[in-house]
Amino acid sequence: MRKDVPLSIQTIFSVREIQAEADRLRSAGKRIGVVPTMGYLHEGHLSLIRRAKELADVVITTIFVNPTQFSVGEDFESYPRDLDADNLRAGEAGADVVFCPDRREMYPEGYLTYVEVETVTSILEGAFRPTHFRGVTTVVAKLFGLTKPHVAVFGQKDAQQAFVVRKMVSDLNMDVEIHVEPTVREPDGLAMSSRNVYLNRAERTAAASLYAALIFAEKQIQDGERSVEKLSGEMKKMISDAGATAIDYIACVEPDTFTPVEAIHPPRILILLAVRFGATRLIDNISVTFS
Amino acid sequence: MRKDVPLSIQTIFSVREIQAEADRLRSAGKRIGVVPTMGYLHEGHLSLIRRAKELADVVITTIFVNPTQFSVGEDFESYPRDLDADNLRAGEAGADVVFCPDRREMYPEGYLTYVEVETVTSILEGAFRPTHFRGVTTVVAKLFGLTKPHVAVFGQKDAQQAFVVRKMVSDLNMDVEIHVEPTVREPDGLAMSSRNVYLNRAERTAAASLYAALIFAEKQIQDGERSVEKLSGEMKKMISDAGATAIDYIACVEPDTFTPVEAIHPPRILILLAVRFGATRLIDNISVTFS
Repeated sequence: MRKDVPLSIQTIFSVREIQAEADRLRSAGKRIGVVPTMGYLHEGHLSLIRRAKELADVVITTIFVNPTQFSVGEDFESYPRDLDADNLRAGEAGADVVFCPDRREMYPEGYLTYVEVETVTSILEGAFRPTHFRGVTTVVAKLFGLTKPHVAVFGQKDAQQAFVVRKMVSDLNMDVEIHVEPTVREPDGLAMSSRNVYLNRAERTAAASLYAALIFAEKQIQDGERSVEKLSGEMKKMISDAGATAIDYIACVEPDTFTPVEAIHPPRILILLAVRFGATRLIDNISVTFS
Repeated sequence: MRKDVPLSIQTIFSVREIQAEADRLRSAGKRIGVVPTMGYLHEGHLSLIRRAKELADVVITTIFVNPTQFSVGEDFESYPRDLDADNLRAGEAGADVVFCPDRREMYPEGYLTYVEVETVTSILEGAFRPTHFRGVTTVVAKLFGLTKPHVAVFGQKDAQQAFVVRKMVSDLNMDVEIHVEPTVREPDGLAMSSRNVYLNRAERTAAASLYAALIFAEKQIQDGERSVEKLSGEMKKMISDAGATAIDYIACVEPDTFTPVEAIHPPRILILLAVRFGATRLIDNISVTFS
């Protein structure tokens, strides 16, 4: 890590100011990249910021724990927050602006408007988190309106979210290029997530079984396995044996349409899972290309 | 009417081209005004185009009979269309570009995304046309994404629509100035509407009762009447006596919140109505300022 970076990052809290700044940047002919996050930045987020810096002249990182994408009973209140550390990390990774509005700035009293992508939002994550994607598409539409990006970078860890955002952008004719970057992992394969801090030592060890199961499935497919039932059965066993509290789903979807399949066909399949360790719910996925 | 206008209007059919044109205009520092219409342009539309020309450097008129804002059983198929005349009229009024996509261009196969404003969209027009405003906000969001306007001009004739669009723009942080222009009327007071062509001679005569009832109500309020029940009762009688087939609603709303009221309070009230003459459904409204 570079420790001698002159921290020239600009922190903006108000919608009026971020929109004015985006206008100013656009008028100056700058290409704007945005990386929407909920903060508590880890290496996964930083890889998105670095990628945005390659794709744009100016990178805006948004930090907003968006209440509308949490369902009732989820961890909105306890979601980890550390704005000072986030500013430092975002700046070191190449962000020029951090936009961190508060809840009332984003959803003033009397707020009424939602953006919704149908169908694909009611399966997998959408089945377990009923209003989640409506909250995601709404806040992303707002953040795009505020930051006026040419390009936005999302992480493949939230594969269904990336698919849904792409669909919204295409359907609503938003002129924003969407880039999706690979998941960054811990040495034992656990996907980086702000929620990993919730895990106790035993859960943290057990959580490595998610990636182990995904690469096991990848290997099986490369070796000719084509049955989703057989694969997911074996994955379930691995994850349960490791100590998972509950497996919400393990599914295989056709990557271009996000349609769940029963039998695996080349050239590409996306395997997704959501698993609970104690009270902590983790998601992960792997894209397998084969012939 | 000027008949010697050199018709230099540009007609664009594809989303790719209109977005490229909007980009080009923005890069050249032009201020873009958009007037979204469903075509069959009358003096009401033309007044919006003329106003847009005062507010912007370049005016894009969109002509699209938007299927998603028609409910089942409504007049989507029979809605009047005349693109050649529209191009001519729009050009004479000052439009520089006409964007007239077909249905598949706006809603390609697999289309899934909708923008919805809650609450205010379920009363009055929303109560009688359940999916209407969802269709309006969705298509307006798309048209804004495509034409990248600095300013958009709507008509006060569709008062609830104008309110809902303003709410969407504010909630979703769309950086578009919304202007709402006065209703243009026939000599007998009937609000200009593309649907007026549906009226037979007797219905056309009877339809003048709408404006007569609205100005009667305005006079009553100026003279001290404060009861919505009393006012709407008298208006209903006037309109029924003239030969209306059905009165969908007559309502008074607080203009800043679009909340229906029972008693009229200064400084301003908006009186709205929807009435059927034969199979034709007409809407109108009047804003009354008083002390």
